[in-house]
Amino acid sequence: MIQQMQFALKQVQQKRPLVHHLTNYVTVNDCANITLAIGGSPVMADAIEEVKDMASMASSVVLNMGTINKRTLASMITAGKTANQKGIPVVFDPVGVGATRYRNESALEILSKVTCDVIRGNASELCFLLERKSETNGVDAAINAQDYDIQTMVVNLANTFHCVVACTGAIDIISDGKKVIKIYNGHKQMSAITGTGCMCTSLIGAYCGANDDTFIATCSALISMGIAGELAYEKTKQQGLGHFHMGILDEIGKLDAQTIAQEAKYDETEY
Amino acid sequence: MIQQMQFALKQVQQKRPLVHHLTNYVTVNDCANITLAIGGSPVMADAIEEVKDMASMASSVVLNMGTINKRTLASMITAGKTANQKGIPVVFDPVGVGATRYRNESALEILSKVTCDVIRGNASELCFLLERKSETNGVDAAINAQDYDIQTMVVNLANTFHCVVACTGAIDIISDGKKVIKIYNGHKQMSAITGTGCMCTSLIGAYCGANDDTFIATCSALISMGIAGELAYEKTKQQGLGHFHMGILDEIGKLDAQTIAQEAKYDETEY
Amino acid sequence: MIQQMQFALKQVQQKRPLVHHLTNYVTVNDCANITLAIGGSPVMADAIEEVKDMASMASSVVLNMGTINKRTLASMITAGKTANQKGIPVVFDPVGVGATRYRNESALEILSKVTCDVIRGNASELCFLLERKSETNGVDAAINAQDYDIQTMVVNLANTFHCVVACTGAIDIISDGKKVIKIYNGHKQMSAITGTGCMCTSLIGAYCGANDDTFIATCSALISMGIAGELAYEKTKQQGLGHFHMGILDEIGKLDAQTIAQEAKYDETEY
Repeated sequence: MIQQMQFALKQVQQKRPLVHHLTNYVTVNDCANITLAIGGSPVMADAIEEVKDMASMASSVVLNMGTINKRTLASMITAGKTANQKGIPVVFDPVGVGATRYRNESALEILSKVTCDVIRGNASELCFLLERKSETNGVDAAINAQDYDIQTMVVNLANTFHCVVACTGAIDIISDGKKVIKIYNGHKQMSAITGTGCMCTSLIGAYCGANDDTFIATCSALISMGIAGELAYEKTKQQGLGHFHMGILDEIGKLDAQTIAQEAKYDETEY
Repeated sequence: MIQQMQFALKQVQQKRPLVHHLTNYVTVNDCANITLAIGGSPVMADAIEEVKDMASMASSVVLNMGTINKRTLASMITAGKTANQKGIPVVFDPVGVGATRYRNESALEILSKVTCDVIRGNASELCFLLERKSETNGVDAAINAQDYDIQTMVVNLANTFHCVVACTGAIDIISDGKKVIKIYNGHKQMSAITGTGCMCTSLIGAYCGANDDTFIATCSALISMGIAGELAYEKTKQQGLGHFHMGILDEIGKLDAQTIAQEAKYDETEY
Repeated sequence: MIQQMQFALKQVQQKRPLVHHLTNYVTVNDCANITLAIGGSPVMADAIEEVKDMASMASSVVLNMGTINKRTLASMITAGKTANQKGIPVVFDPVGVGATRYRNESALEILSKVTCDVIRGNASELCFLLERKSETNGVDAAINAQDYDIQTMVVNLANTFHCVVACTGAIDIISDGKKVIKIYNGHKQMSAITGTGCMCTSLIGAYCGANDDTFIATCSALISMGIAGELAYEKTKQQGLGHFHMGILDEIGKLDAQTIAQEAKYDETEY
């Protein structure tokens, strides 16, 4: 699988996929910069009048619910449907789902109208999507579902929505409903920076925009982010969170096949 | 008071307050990151459909008028009223008030409908709120109210709105209408970074979300920001403004009881 | 011309022009910070209810189409018209024009209703404005108009809209319809950071807000950005893209007359 991930990165760097983001205004700059750093080309556009045109020319479409409202929800659905018609992969990040009724309804509306190729969230967000209940302590919520078997949840969610599901946390778990990958890369300090989840989702968008195998693309994105977090922490820990934030972008920009081979830490299993 | 501020910081780090922000799209990333860096948990959400739910579960609500519009003004008022009903502290940042009629009307509408626990602004913004006139040279306006006694203005404003008022500038002045604290921490270079005011407000939100005494919470937040600015300037002055910006987040993330004791510079008086 | 550019910088630092931005939510923080770093005072406001008031008191108005929508398009037109009535310079950045029909119509609507003093874009964007056709591969599009003579295009566009046109790329070309300046400063790594184009536009806004000669102001802004990119790259290349991003802001903040004299690389010609 290392070779597949190395190839996936090379594809991103060579094809320079156009990643159309409909995303939140909190972490959007980081999402654009990380897409550029991995080798993609980001475009952010959410006017209902243009999302059809923009999604049509994109290599992938990222729907991130972070600061969703009525206007942008409608644009996300239009962009997502357009991508579906054209066979362009859609990556969905249900930020904060479980926290408010509106957020819940919005996520379920998107999932009912748009076929998503990849869903990425934390355990509490994905839990909600599976159970349509659960509670979150806001967007960066810690999971109180410790007694829940997260791996089973991820596999079930993948089978429910017939897509790849990526659950990020201390250990990342990715499944397409059959295969399961656990990724051990990353550093706990990443949760002290806003947007590391959103950046993961943008990386998935970039990888999926340049690779047909969305499962490998998603694993590659999460391993890329995890490795970048580890290397950035090593180099910036003396300085602190502001420099760590910049360090993550540094390391994504320097990522290459050799670093992936040296640093990737994961398990593969069939479920 | 040092011990009270040390305790206030510890409370933030232990309680990890959820700070619901309705804020501008210019400095929102910094607001989220500084909330995380001090130990809080930021959530940004401004859809009218969800702000009641989000504010209800928050530890504090921050209303920042930076890029206000009709849609977000309505959401701010709803979020603020909800917080009032639930006894959740509301921190108000009347960014740029005095600059345009719309901004003036919006600030006064918020203040008439929402009981704010803390108001933070620069002298020209607070002047306007007190006098309902004054002129600003835009958002980062220098005060031409030099002949005005700022301390009296802050005390009067605190008594007018029955809340804590924090006026930030070369010297920060905080009052609850009786006690007055002057804080001498900070560095003039901080005004060359956008959002240092907004970041202060977010820190106040984090401290108020974890502490019952809003006066101590506000003083702690401003001293935290001032100390971070000083330490960051020392470490990054050779490099420049971009690194100074990151340095502020570095230092907030490293702040501890000892640093507060060593670095805090302030005067207390009764008015 | 070096002396004129040195004078232009001094004017920015002394007059501290208020640059009213109506801009996108992706790069807005960088736009504000670079405006501060060069010595200006940024204000971001896009509510239709206040843009007349804000534009009226501004030294210059920047219209950046990055994440335009119906609401902000109307505000841009109102702000632009207000600036025209008051004789305040308007700088237009038609981000991504050519990519979608809505973006094309919006750009042409702005240009038909607002007299722009400066238009800045990349070759594909400016090509579209001239030809009203052309194709872009999204916002950061590479130009497939290699066989097109960009200099002729810039001159023609300047004559068509009776304004200064700045085309940024490997070589920057600026014309007022008669004079042409080519700027060789900059580093190719700048295109791996989102918003270097937007930041250029904000610098043009700051220079035009403090100088009557918009041609010199525009050249000064692009040379400032190019020099900052080169110096930042030298200092941060070991670290990577995140630090390079901060480095650009560092260098703009340290720019002075001597650095301009030492580092500026350009040609002047009459067309």
